[in-house]
Amino acid sequence: MNIRVFVTLKNGVLDPQGRAIHHAIENLGFEGVNDVRAGRLIELDVDPAVTDEQIAEICTKLLANMVIENFEIQRV
Amino acid sequence: MNIRVFVTLKNGVLDPQGRAIHHAIENLGFEGVNDVRAGRLIELDVDPAVTDEQIAEICTKLLANMVIENFEIQRV
Repeated sequence: MNIRVFVTLKNGVLDPQGRAIHHAIENLGFEGVNDVRAGRLIELDVDPAVTDEQIAEICTKLLANMVIENFEIQRV
Repeated sequence: MNIRVFVTLKNGVLDPQGRAIHHAIENLGFEGVNDVRAGRLIELDVDPAVTDEQIAEICTKLLANMVIENFEIQRV
């Protein structure tokens, strides 16, 4: 079973990587992009018995820095 | 309008970051995780007029290295 974990910066946290991507998109001549935020994607292949609570524990202990980041779990 | 772009390593490309995360999860005592792949998540806030074709062009030109990476576009 595949699980996707999205780790994103919390609102209000400066995102220099996202800003750099935004500038690069504009410099390429693309219009209509208002904002860019960069984050991480972690794909886990887990046994069906693994619960969302266990995944959330992995996220808070390892994958995300809860001071500045949020995470979201999506079963694929 | 929010768009999520997932950039992941192609199958067969070594993923040391994912392997390190996998080891760390096992060292924390979690069981049932068979594989971990690390990727990038880029969230774009775009005008509704922006098409998926334009986003795909941004991906191939800027966000993904098509030699070793795939991308996926998801409208949120």
